[in-house]
Amino acid sequence: MGKWFAGFFQDAGFPVLISDLDTEFTSEDLARQCQVLVLSLPMEVFPEVVAGLGPLLAESSFMTDLCSLKKTQVACMMEHTRCEVAGTHPLFGPAEDSIEGRRVALCPGRGKRWFGWWEGLLRRHGALTSVVSAEEHDRAMAWAQALNHFILLCLGKALEEDGVDLEKILELAPPSFERQMKIVSRLSRQDPELYATIQMSNPYTVRTLETFSQYGEALKKIIRERDRSAFIDLFKEVQDLGRTLLVKKLD
Amino acid sequence: MGKWFAGFFQDAGFPVLISDLDTEFTSEDLARQCQVLVLSLPMEVFPEVVAGLGPLLAESSFMTDLCSLKKTQVACMMEHTRCEVAGTHPLFGPAEDSIEGRRVALCPGRGKRWFGWWEGLLRRHGALTSVVSAEEHDRAMAWAQALNHFILLCLGKALEEDGVDLEKILELAPPSFERQMKIVSRLSRQDPELYATIQMSNPYTVRTLETFSQYGEALKKIIRERDRSAFIDLFKEVQDLGRTLLVKKLD
Repeated sequence: MGKWFAGFFQDAGFPVLISDLDTEFTSEDLARQCQVLVLSLPMEVFPEVVAGLGPLLAESSFMTDLCSLKKTQVACMMEHTRCEVAGTHPLFGPAEDSIEGRRVALCPGRGKRWFGWWEGLLRRHGALTSVVSAEEHDRAMAWAQALNHFILLCLGKALEEDGVDLEKILELAPPSFERQMKIVSRLSRQDPELYATIQMSNPYTVRTLETFSQYGEALKKIIRERDRSAFIDLFKEVQDLGRTLLVKKLD
Repeated sequence: MGKWFAGFFQDAGFPVLISDLDTEFTSEDLARQCQVLVLSLPMEVFPEVVAGLGPLLAESSFMTDLCSLKKTQVACMMEHTRCEVAGTHPLFGPAEDSIEGRRVALCPGRGKRWFGWWEGLLRRHGALTSVVSAEEHDRAMAWAQALNHFILLCLGKALEEDGVDLEKILELAPPSFERQMKIVSRLSRQDPELYATIQMSNPYTVRTLETFSQYGEALKKIIRERDRSAFIDLFKEVQDLGRTLLVKKLD
Protein backbone atom coordinates (compact mmCIF):
# COMPACT_ATOMS: atom_id res chain seq x y z
CA MET A 1 0.00 0.00 0.00
CA GLY A 2 3.02 2.28 0.50
CA LYS A 3 3.86 2.00 -3.19
CA TRP A 4 0.20 2.52 -4.09
CA PHE A 5 0.05 5.79 -2.12
CA ALA A 6 3.39 6.93 -3.58
CA GLY A 7 1.66 6.73 -6.98
CA PHE A 8 -1.40 8.50 -5.59
CA PHE A 9 0.67 11.46 -4.32
CA GLN A 10 2.67 11.65 -7.55
CA ASP A 11 -0.52 11.68 -9.63
CA ALA A 12 -1.83 14.44 -7.37
CA GLY A 13 1.25 16.52 -8.26
CA PHE A 14 3.32 16.21 -5.09
CA PRO A 15 7.04 15.43 -5.04
CA VAL A 16 7.48 12.03 -3.38
CA LEU A 17 10.54 10.52 -1.70
CA ILE A 18 10.51 6.82 -0.95
CA SER A 19 12.55 4.95 1.61
CA ASP A 20 12.64 1.17 1.54
CA LEU A 21 15.23 -1.56 2.03
CA ASP A 22 17.06 -0.73 -1.23
CA THR A 23 16.46 2.99 -1.77
CA GLU A 24 18.84 5.96 -1.92
CA PHE A 25 17.09 7.66 0.98
CA THR A 26 16.81 6.30 4.51
CA SER A 27 13.71 6.72 6.64
CA GLU A 28 15.69 9.18 8.76
CA ASP A 29 16.40 11.31 5.65
CA LEU A 30 12.71 11.44 4.89
CA ALA A 31 11.73 12.20 8.48
CA ARG A 32 14.05 15.21 8.43
CA GLN A 33 13.16 16.47 4.92
CA CYS A 34 9.46 15.77 4.27
CA GLN A 35 6.48 17.82 5.35
CA VAL A 36 4.29 14.74 5.26
CA LEU A 37 5.55 11.34 6.36
CA VAL A 38 3.37 8.35 5.44
CA LEU A 39 4.38 5.17 7.23
CA SER A 40 3.65 1.89 5.48
CA LEU A 41 5.12 -0.76 7.73
CA PRO A 42 4.39 -4.21 9.10
CA MET A 43 2.62 -3.65 12.42
CA GLU A 44 5.23 -5.74 14.25
CA VAL A 45 8.07 -3.24 13.61
CA PHE A 46 5.86 -0.15 13.80
CA PRO A 47 6.58 0.93 17.43
CA GLU A 48 10.33 0.61 17.01
CA VAL A 49 10.44 2.58 13.74
CA VAL A 50 8.16 5.33 15.05
CA ALA A 51 10.24 5.67 18.22
CA GLY A 52 13.30 6.22 16.01
CA LEU A 53 11.77 8.59 13.45
CA GLY A 54 9.24 10.55 15.53
CA PRO A 55 11.74 12.88 17.23
CA LEU A 56 13.28 13.80 13.83
CA LEU A 57 10.10 15.36 12.42
CA ALA A 58 9.67 19.13 12.51
CA GLU A 59 6.76 20.32 14.65
CA SER A 60 5.18 21.81 11.52
CA SER A 61 5.04 18.49 9.66
CA PHE A 62 2.50 15.67 9.55
CA MET A 63 2.82 11.97 10.31
CA THR A 64 0.28 9.37 9.27
CA ASP A 65 0.32 5.60 8.79
CA LEU A 66 -1.50 2.97 6.75
CA CYS A 67 -1.90 0.20 9.35
CA SER A 68 -5.02 -1.96 9.55
CA LEU A 69 -5.34 -1.22 13.26
CA LYS A 70 -5.32 2.25 14.77
CA LYS A 71 -5.51 2.40 18.57
CA THR A 72 -1.95 1.51 19.56
CA GLN A 73 -0.60 2.92 16.28
CA VAL A 74 -2.05 6.43 16.74
CA ALA A 75 -1.04 6.42 20.42
CA CYS A 76 2.49 5.40 19.42
CA MET A 77 2.80 8.21 16.84
CA MET A 78 1.49 10.72 19.41
CA GLU A 79 4.00 9.55 22.01
CA HIS A 80 7.07 9.91 19.82
CA THR A 81 6.31 13.13 17.90
CA ARG A 82 5.39 16.75 18.51
CA CYS A 83 4.03 17.25 14.96
CA GLU A 84 0.49 16.80 13.74
CA VAL A 85 -0.63 13.14 13.62
CA ALA A 86 -3.51 11.14 12.18
CA GLY A 87 -4.13 7.46 11.57
CA THR A 88 -5.16 6.30 8.09
CA HIS A 89 -6.65 2.93 7.20
CA PRO A 90 -7.31 2.49 3.48
CA LEU A 91 -10.10 -0.10 3.31
CA PHE A 92 -9.05 -1.45 -0.04
CA GLY A 93 -6.12 -3.31 -1.50
CA PRO A 94 -3.29 -2.35 -3.84
CA ALA A 95 -5.10 -4.00 -6.78
CA GLU A 96 -7.43 -0.98 -7.11
CA ASP A 97 -6.70 1.39 -9.99
CA SER A 98 -8.11 4.45 -8.28
CA ILE A 99 -9.27 5.71 -4.89
CA GLU A 100 -12.58 6.76 -6.47
CA GLY A 101 -15.41 5.25 -4.41
CA ARG A 102 -13.01 3.45 -2.03
CA ARG A 103 -13.31 3.76 1.74
CA VAL A 104 -10.64 5.31 3.93
CA ALA A 105 -10.89 5.50 7.74
CA LEU A 106 -9.23 8.52 9.34
CA CYS A 107 -8.49 8.65 13.06
CA PRO A 108 -7.63 12.09 14.46
CA GLY A 109 -4.48 12.23 16.55
CA ARG A 110 -3.00 15.70 17.04
CA GLY A 111 -3.85 18.87 15.13
CA LYS A 112 -6.49 19.94 12.61
CA ARG A 113 -4.63 21.73 9.83
CA TRP A 114 -2.91 18.74 8.23
CA PHE A 115 -5.87 16.53 9.02
CA GLY A 116 -8.08 18.87 6.98
CA TRP A 117 -5.56 18.90 4.15
CA TRP A 118 -5.32 15.09 4.13
CA GLU A 119 -9.05 14.46 4.29
CA GLY A 120 -9.67 17.11 1.61
CA LEU A 121 -7.07 15.58 -0.71
CA LEU A 122 -8.57 12.09 -0.36
CA ARG A 123 -12.10 13.37 -0.90
CA ARG A 124 -11.20 15.44 -3.94
CA HIS A 125 -9.93 12.23 -5.51
CA GLY A 126 -13.22 10.48 -4.76
CA ALA A 127 -12.39 8.54 -1.59
CA LEU A 128 -15.22 7.94 0.89
CA THR A 129 -13.59 9.06 4.13
CA SER A 130 -14.92 8.20 7.60
CA VAL A 131 -13.60 10.02 10.63
CA VAL A 132 -13.66 7.76 13.71
CA SER A 133 -11.79 7.51 16.96
CA ALA A 134 -8.98 4.95 16.89
CA GLU A 135 -10.88 2.88 19.46
CA GLU A 136 -14.13 2.89 17.46
CA HIS A 137 -12.11 1.92 14.41
CA ASP A 138 -10.53 -1.10 16.08
CA ARG A 139 -13.86 -2.22 17.56
CA ALA A 140 -15.49 -2.07 14.13
CA MET A 141 -12.55 -3.94 12.58
CA ALA A 142 -12.94 -6.78 15.07
CA TRP A 143 -16.24 -7.42 13.25
CA ALA A 144 -15.59 -6.27 9.71
CA GLN A 145 -12.11 -7.77 9.36
CA ALA A 146 -11.21 -10.19 12.17
CA LEU A 147 -14.54 -12.03 12.50
CA ASN A 148 -15.04 -11.96 8.75
CA HIS A 149 -11.63 -13.54 8.12
CA PHE A 150 -12.21 -16.00 10.96
CA ILE A 151 -15.43 -17.24 9.33
CA LEU A 152 -13.79 -17.58 5.92
CA LEU A 153 -10.86 -19.51 7.39
CA CYS A 154 -13.10 -21.89 9.34
CA LEU A 155 -15.24 -22.44 6.27
CA GLY A 156 -12.23 -23.10 4.06
CA LYS A 157 -10.55 -25.38 6.60
CA ALA A 158 -13.73 -27.36 7.26
CA LEU A 159 -14.35 -27.85 3.53
CA GLU A 160 -10.79 -28.95 2.99
CA GLU A 161 -10.64 -31.37 5.91
CA ASP A 162 -14.02 -32.90 5.27
CA GLY A 163 -12.83 -33.93 1.83
CA VAL A 164 -16.16 -33.01 0.25
CA ASP A 165 -16.33 -32.84 -3.53
CA LEU A 166 -15.83 -29.12 -4.10
CA GLU A 167 -16.67 -29.36 -7.77
CA LYS A 168 -20.02 -30.90 -6.90
CA ILE A 169 -20.74 -28.32 -4.22
CA LEU A 170 -19.92 -25.45 -6.57
CA GLU A 171 -22.16 -26.93 -9.25
CA LEU A 172 -25.00 -26.93 -6.75
CA ALA A 173 -24.20 -23.70 -4.94
CA PRO A 174 -26.92 -21.10 -4.61
CA PRO A 175 -25.68 -17.57 -5.39
CA SER A 176 -25.00 -16.64 -1.76
CA PHE A 177 -22.71 -19.64 -1.21
CA GLU A 178 -20.97 -18.98 -4.51
CA ARG A 179 -20.26 -15.44 -3.30
CA GLN A 180 -18.84 -16.87 -0.05
CA MET A 181 -16.58 -19.19 -2.04
CA LYS A 182 -15.41 -16.31 -4.18
CA ILE A 183 -14.40 -14.46 -1.03
CA VAL A 184 -12.56 -17.58 0.23
CA SER A 185 -10.78 -17.93 -3.11
CA ARG A 186 -9.53 -14.31 -2.87
CA LEU A 187 -7.65 -15.22 0.33
CA SER A 188 -5.11 -16.97 -1.91
CA ARG A 189 -3.86 -13.54 -3.02
CA GLN A 190 -3.50 -12.13 0.51
CA ASP A 191 -0.57 -11.89 2.90
CA PRO A 192 -0.82 -14.46 5.76
CA GLU A 193 1.36 -12.28 8.03
CA LEU A 194 -1.03 -9.32 7.74
CA TYR A 195 -4.00 -11.57 8.44
CA ALA A 196 -2.26 -13.01 11.51
CA THR A 197 -1.62 -9.51 12.83
CA ILE A 198 -5.22 -8.42 12.20
CA GLN A 199 -6.41 -11.38 14.31
CA MET A 200 -3.85 -11.21 17.05
CA SER A 201 -3.17 -7.52 17.59
CA ASN A 202 -6.69 -6.20 17.89
CA PRO A 203 -7.71 -6.29 21.57
CA TYR A 204 -11.41 -6.51 20.60
CA THR A 205 -11.07 -9.59 18.42
CA VAL A 206 -11.30 -12.38 20.98
CA ARG A 207 -14.50 -11.02 22.50
CA THR A 208 -16.07 -10.69 19.05
CA LEU A 209 -15.12 -14.24 18.08
CA GLU A 210 -16.53 -15.49 21.38
CA THR A 211 -19.82 -13.69 20.79
CA PHE A 212 -20.11 -15.29 17.36
CA SER A 213 -19.26 -18.78 18.69
CA GLN A 214 -21.69 -18.42 21.55
CA TYR A 215 -24.61 -17.85 19.17
CA GLY A 216 -23.26 -20.66 17.03
CA GLU A 217 -23.53 -23.06 19.96
CA ALA A 218 -27.03 -21.82 20.80
CA LEU A 219 -28.19 -22.20 17.21
CA LYS A 220 -26.67 -25.69 16.86
CA LYS A 221 -28.64 -26.74 19.94
CA ILE A 222 -31.86 -25.36 18.42
CA ILE A 223 -31.17 -27.29 15.20
CA ARG A 224 -30.19 -30.55 16.94
CA GLU A 225 -33.34 -30.41 19.07
CA ARG A 226 -35.44 -29.43 16.03
CA ASP A 227 -36.93 -26.54 17.97
CA ARG A 228 -38.66 -24.87 15.01
CA SER A 229 -40.26 -22.05 16.95
CA ALA A 230 -36.92 -21.02 18.55
CA PHE A 231 -35.30 -21.16 15.09
CA ILE A 232 -38.01 -19.00 13.58
CA ASP A 233 -37.77 -16.44 16.40
CA LEU A 234 -34.02 -16.16 15.85
CA PHE A 235 -34.48 -15.97 12.07
CA LYS A 236 -36.97 -13.13 12.46
CA GLU A 237 -34.58 -11.19 14.71
CA VAL A 238 -31.91 -11.47 12.02
CA GLN A 239 -34.47 -10.43 9.40
CA ASP A 240 -35.14 -7.26 11.42
CA LEU A 241 -31.41 -6.55 11.38
CA GLY A 242 -31.38 -7.32 7.65
CA ARG A 243 -34.11 -4.75 7.05
CA THR A 244 -32.11 -2.17 9.03
CA LEU A 245 -29.13 -2.94 6.81
CA LEU A 246 -31.24 -2.49 3.68
CA VAL A 247 -32.45 0.88 4.95
CA LYS A 248 -28.92 1.99 5.83
CA LYS A 249 -26.61 1.66 2.92
CA LEU A 250 -26.77 -1.67 1.18
CA ASP A 251 -28.54 -2.43 -2.11
CA MET B 1 -41.46 -21.40 -7.00
CA GLY B 2 -44.57 -23.29 -8.12
CA LYS B 3 -46.02 -20.10 -9.62
CA TRP B 4 -42.62 -19.28 -11.17
CA PHE B 5 -42.48 -22.67 -12.93
CA ALA B 6 -46.11 -22.33 -14.06
CA GLY B 7 -44.98 -19.21 -15.92
CA PHE B 8 -41.93 -21.04 -17.24
CA PHE B 9 -44.05 -23.86 -18.73
CA GLN B 10 -46.58 -21.42 -20.17
CA ASP B 11 -43.82 -19.38 -21.81
CA ALA B 12 -42.43 -22.63 -23.23
CA GLY B 13 -45.80 -23.27 -24.88
CA PHE B 14 -47.27 -25.96 -22.63
CA PRO B 15 -50.84 -25.93 -21.29
CA VAL B 16 -50.62 -25.58 -17.50
CA LEU B 17 -53.19 -26.44 -14.84
CA ILE B 18 -52.66 -25.13 -11.33
CA SER B 19 -54.03 -26.49 -8.10
CA ASP B 20 -53.73 -24.44 -4.94
CA LEU B 21 -55.92 -23.65 -1.93
CA ASP B 22 -58.33 -21.49 -3.94
CA THR B 23 -58.24 -22.94 -7.47
CA GLU B 24 -60.89 -24.61 -9.62
CA PHE B 25 -58.85 -27.80 -9.88
CA THR B 26 -57.83 -30.04 -6.99
CA SER B 27 -54.47 -31.79 -6.81
CA GLU B 28 -56.32 -35.04 -7.45
CA ASP B 29 -57.78 -33.61 -10.70
CA LEU B 30 -54.28 -32.71 -11.85
CA ALA B 31 -52.77 -36.04 -10.84
CA ARG B 32 -55.39 -37.81 -12.99
CA GLN B 33 -55.24 -35.43 -16.00
CA CYS B 34 -51.64 -34.19 -16.39
CA GLN B 35 -48.76 -35.91 -18.11
CA VAL B 36 -46.32 -34.02 -15.95
CA LEU B 37 -47.02 -33.28 -12.30
CA VAL B 38 -44.73 -30.71 -10.65
CA LEU B 39 -45.08 -30.64 -6.87
CA SER B 40 -44.32 -27.36 -5.15
CA LEU B 41 -45.13 -27.98 -1.50
CA PRO B 42 -43.82 -27.26 1.98
CA MET B 43 -41.59 -30.20 2.87
CA GLU B 44 -43.62 -30.87 6.02
CA VAL B 45 -46.75 -31.88 4.11
CA PHE B 46 -44.88 -33.49 1.20
CA PRO B 47 -45.07 -37.18 2.27
CA GLU B 48 -48.79 -37.01 2.99
CA VAL B 49 -49.64 -35.28 -0.31
CA VAL B 50 -47.48 -37.66 -2.36
CA ALA B 51 -49.02 -40.69 -0.64
CA GLY B 52 -52.45 -39.38 -1.71
CA LEU B 53 -51.63 -38.34 -5.27
CA GLY B 54 -48.99 -40.88 -6.31
CA PRO B 55 -51.38 -43.80 -6.96
CA LEU B 56 -53.58 -41.57 -9.17
CA LEU B 57 -50.86 -40.91 -11.79
CA ALA B 58 -50.82 -42.94 -14.99
CA GLU B 59 -47.75 -45.12 -15.41
CA SER B 60 -46.87 -43.13 -18.57
CA SER B 61 -46.71 -39.79 -16.71
CA PHE B 62 -43.95 -37.97 -14.86
CA MET B 63 -43.74 -36.68 -11.29
CA THR B 64 -41.16 -34.19 -10.09
CA ASP B 65 -40.89 -31.81 -7.15
CA LEU B 66 -39.17 -28.51 -6.32
CA CYS B 67 -38.06 -29.22 -2.72
CA SER B 68 -34.73 -27.95 -1.36
CA LEU B 69 -33.87 -31.46 -0.16
CA LYS B 70 -34.00 -34.56 -2.28
CA LYS B 71 -33.17 -37.83 -0.52
CA THR B 72 -36.39 -38.52 1.37
CA GLN B 73 -38.42 -36.63 -1.27
CA VAL B 74 -37.30 -38.73 -4.22
CA ALA B 75 -37.66 -41.91 -2.15
CA CYS B 76 -41.18 -40.85 -1.19
CA MET B 77 -42.21 -40.18 -4.82
CA MET B 78 -40.76 -43.57 -5.85
CA GLU B 79 -42.64 -45.35 -3.09
CA HIS B 80 -46.07 -44.00 -3.96
CA THR B 81 -45.98 -44.01 -7.79
CA ARG B 82 -45.37 -46.35 -10.68
CA CYS B 83 -44.68 -43.51 -13.16
CA GLU B 84 -41.35 -41.92 -14.02
CA VAL B 85 -39.90 -39.80 -11.21
CA ALA B 86 -37.11 -37.24 -10.77
CA GLY B 87 -36.24 -34.73 -8.09
CA THR B 88 -35.70 -31.08 -9.08
CA HIS B 89 -34.04 -28.41 -6.97
CA PRO B 90 -33.99 -24.98 -8.61
CA LEU B 91 -31.01 -23.21 -7.02
CA PHE B 92 -32.47 -19.77 -7.38
CA GLY B 93 -35.39 -17.80 -6.05
CA PRO B 94 -38.66 -16.60 -7.56
CA ALA B 95 -37.23 -13.09 -8.00
CA GLU B 96 -35.30 -14.19 -11.12
CA ASP B 97 -36.75 -13.07 -14.45
CA SER B 98 -35.39 -16.00 -16.40
CA ILE B 99 -33.81 -19.42 -15.95
CA GLU B 100 -30.93 -18.37 -18.22
CA GLY B 101 -27.65 -19.06 -16.39
CA ARG B 102 -29.42 -20.32 -13.24
CA ARG B 103 -28.55 -23.64 -11.65
CA VAL B 104 -30.94 -26.55 -11.33
CA ALA B 105 -30.07 -29.83 -9.61
CA LEU B 106 -31.73 -32.94 -11.03
CA CYS B 107 -31.84 -36.21 -9.12
CA PRO B 108 -32.80 -39.30 -11.13
CA GLY B 109 -35.56 -41.43 -9.63
CA ARG B 110 -37.28 -43.81 -12.03
CA GLY B 111 -37.08 -43.80 -15.82
CA LYS B 112 -35.06 -41.99 -18.48
CA ARG B 113 -37.54 -40.78 -21.08
CA TRP B 114 -39.19 -38.01 -19.09
CA PHE B 115 -35.90 -37.21 -17.34
CA GLY B 116 -34.31 -36.55 -20.74
CA TRP B 117 -37.27 -34.39 -21.76
CA TRP B 118 -37.13 -32.38 -18.53
CA GLU B 119 -33.37 -31.84 -18.56
CA GLY B 120 -33.50 -30.93 -22.27
CA LEU B 121 -36.27 -28.39 -21.72
CA LEU B 122 -34.39 -26.71 -18.87
CA ARG B 123 -31.15 -26.61 -20.85
CA ARG B 124 -32.78 -25.22 -23.98
CA HIS B 125 -33.94 -22.30 -21.84
CA GLY B 126 -30.41 -21.72 -20.58
CA ALA B 127 -30.48 -23.45 -17.18
CA LEU B 128 -27.24 -24.98 -15.91
CA THR B 129 -28.39 -28.45 -14.92
CA SER B 130 -26.43 -30.80 -12.64
CA VAL B 131 -27.38 -34.43 -12.39
CA VAL B 132 -26.57 -35.83 -8.95
CA SER B 133 -27.83 -38.61 -6.73
CA ALA B 134 -30.30 -37.44 -4.12
CA GLU B 135 -27.80 -38.33 -1.42
CA GLU B 136 -24.95 -36.35 -3.02
CA HIS B 137 -27.35 -33.44 -3.40
CA ASP B 138 -28.31 -33.39 0.27
CA ARG B 139 -24.66 -33.74 1.38
CA ALA B 140 -23.67 -30.78 -0.79
CA MET B 141 -26.62 -28.76 0.49
CA ALA B 142 -25.53 -29.31 4.09
CA TRP B 143 -22.55 -27.11 3.09
CA ALA B 144 -23.93 -24.82 0.44
CA GLN B 145 -27.23 -24.05 2.14
CA ALA B 146 -27.40 -25.22 5.77
CA LEU B 147 -23.89 -24.18 6.89
CA ASN B 148 -24.07 -21.03 4.82
CA HIS B 149 -27.37 -19.99 6.43
CA PHE B 150 -26.04 -21.00 9.84
CA ILE B 151 -23.07 -18.65 9.47
CA LEU B 152 -25.23 -15.77 8.29
CA LEU B 153 -27.66 -16.26 11.18
CA CYS B 154 -24.87 -16.41 13.79
CA LEU B 155 -23.27 -13.32 12.30
CA GLY B 156 -26.56 -11.40 12.24
CA LYS B 157 -27.52 -12.49 15.76
CA ALA B 158 -24.07 -11.66 17.19
CA LEU B 159 -24.09 -8.21 15.57
CA GLU B 160 -27.57 -7.53 16.86
CA GLU B 161 -26.95 -8.70 20.43
CA ASP B 162 -23.61 -6.99 20.77
CA GLY B 163 -25.31 -3.68 20.09
CA VAL B 164 -22.44 -2.50 17.89
CA ASP B 165 -22.97 0.61 15.78
CA LEU B 166 -23.92 -0.98 12.46
CA GLU B 167 -23.74 2.31 10.62
CA LYS B 168 -20.15 2.77 11.76
CA ILE B 169 -19.20 -0.80 10.84
CA LEU B 170 -20.69 -0.44 7.37
CA GLU B 171 -18.85 2.83 6.86
CA LEU B 172 -15.61 1.02 7.64
CA ALA B 173 -16.39 -2.30 5.99
CA PRO B 174 -13.92 -3.70 3.49
CA PRO B 175 -15.63 -5.05 0.35
CA SER B 176 -15.73 -8.67 1.55
CA PHE B 177 -17.58 -7.77 4.76
CA GLU B 178 -19.93 -5.53 2.83
CA ARG B 179 -20.75 -8.50 0.62
CA GLN B 180 -21.43 -10.61 3.72
CA MET B 181 -23.76 -7.94 5.06
CA LYS B 182 -25.60 -7.80 1.74
CA ILE B 183 -26.18 -11.52 2.00
CA VAL B 184 -27.45 -11.10 5.60
CA SER B 185 -29.76 -8.30 4.47
CA ARG B 186 -31.30 -10.53 1.81
CA LEU B 187 -32.48 -12.93 4.55
CA SER B 188 -35.18 -10.38 5.31
CA ARG B 189 -36.95 -11.39 2.09
CA GLN B 190 -36.81 -15.14 2.79
CA ASP B 191 -39.28 -17.56 4.36
CA PRO B 192 -38.25 -18.57 7.93
CA GLU B 193 -40.22 -21.84 7.65
CA LEU B 194 -38.24 -22.94 4.60
CA TYR B 195 -34.97 -22.06 6.30
CA ALA B 196 -35.97 -24.02 9.41
CA THR B 197 -36.73 -27.07 7.25
CA ILE B 198 -33.43 -26.77 5.38
CA GLN B 199 -31.58 -26.85 8.73
CA MET B 200 -33.63 -29.49 10.46
CA SER B 201 -34.59 -31.97 7.75
CA ASN B 202 -31.21 -32.58 6.15
CA PRO B 203 -29.56 -35.53 7.93
CA TYR B 204 -26.07 -34.23 6.97
CA THR B 205 -26.49 -30.79 8.50
CA VAL B 206 -25.53 -31.45 12.11
CA ARG B 207 -22.25 -33.11 11.17
CA THR B 208 -21.35 -30.25 8.84
CA LEU B 209 -22.11 -27.62 11.49
CA GLU B 210 -20.02 -29.60 13.99
CA THR B 211 -17.06 -29.73 11.60
CA PHE B 212 -17.24 -25.97 11.11
CA SER B 213 -17.49 -25.31 14.87
CA GLN B 214 -14.62 -27.66 15.61
CA TYR B 215 -12.25 -25.67 13.38
CA GLY B 216 -13.69 -22.50 14.87
CA GLU B 217 -12.66 -23.63 18.34
CA ALA B 218 -9.20 -24.66 17.13
CA LEU B 219 -8.68 -21.32 15.38
CA LYS B 220 -9.88 -19.32 18.38
CA LYS B 221 -7.30 -21.14 20.50
CA ILE B 222 -4.55 -20.28 17.99
CA ILE B 223 -5.62 -16.62 18.08
CA ARG B 224 -5.96 -16.44 21.88
CA GLU B 225 -2.50 -17.98 22.29
CA ARG B 226 -1.08 -15.74 19.53
CA ASP B 227 0.43 -18.76 17.84
CA ARG B 228 1.45 -17.00 14.62
CA SER B 229 3.07 -19.97 12.96
CA ALA B 230 0.01 -22.21 13.50
CA PHE B 231 -2.17 -19.39 12.13
CA ILE B 232 -0.03 -19.00 9.06
CA ASP B 233 0.00 -22.77 8.42
CA LEU B 234 -3.79 -22.83 8.55
CA PHE B 235 -4.03 -19.71 6.38
CA LYS B 236 -1.82 -21.31 3.74
CA GLU B 237 -3.94 -24.48 3.70
CA VAL B 238 -7.01 -22.34 3.03
CA GLN B 239 -5.09 -20.45 0.35
CA ASP B 240 -4.40 -23.78 -1.38
CA LEU B 241 -8.11 -24.47 -1.32
CA GLY B 242 -8.72 -20.93 -2.59
CA ARG B 243 -6.42 -21.56 -5.55
CA THR B 244 -8.29 -24.79 -6.33
CA LEU B 245 -11.52 -22.79 -6.27
CA LEU B 246 -10.05 -20.22 -8.65
CA VAL B 247 -8.99 -22.96 -11.03
CA LYS B 248 -12.39 -24.63 -10.89
CA LYS B 249 -15.15 -22.24 -11.70
CA LEU B 250 -14.94 -18.99 -9.82
CA ASP B 251 -13.64 -15.68 -11.17
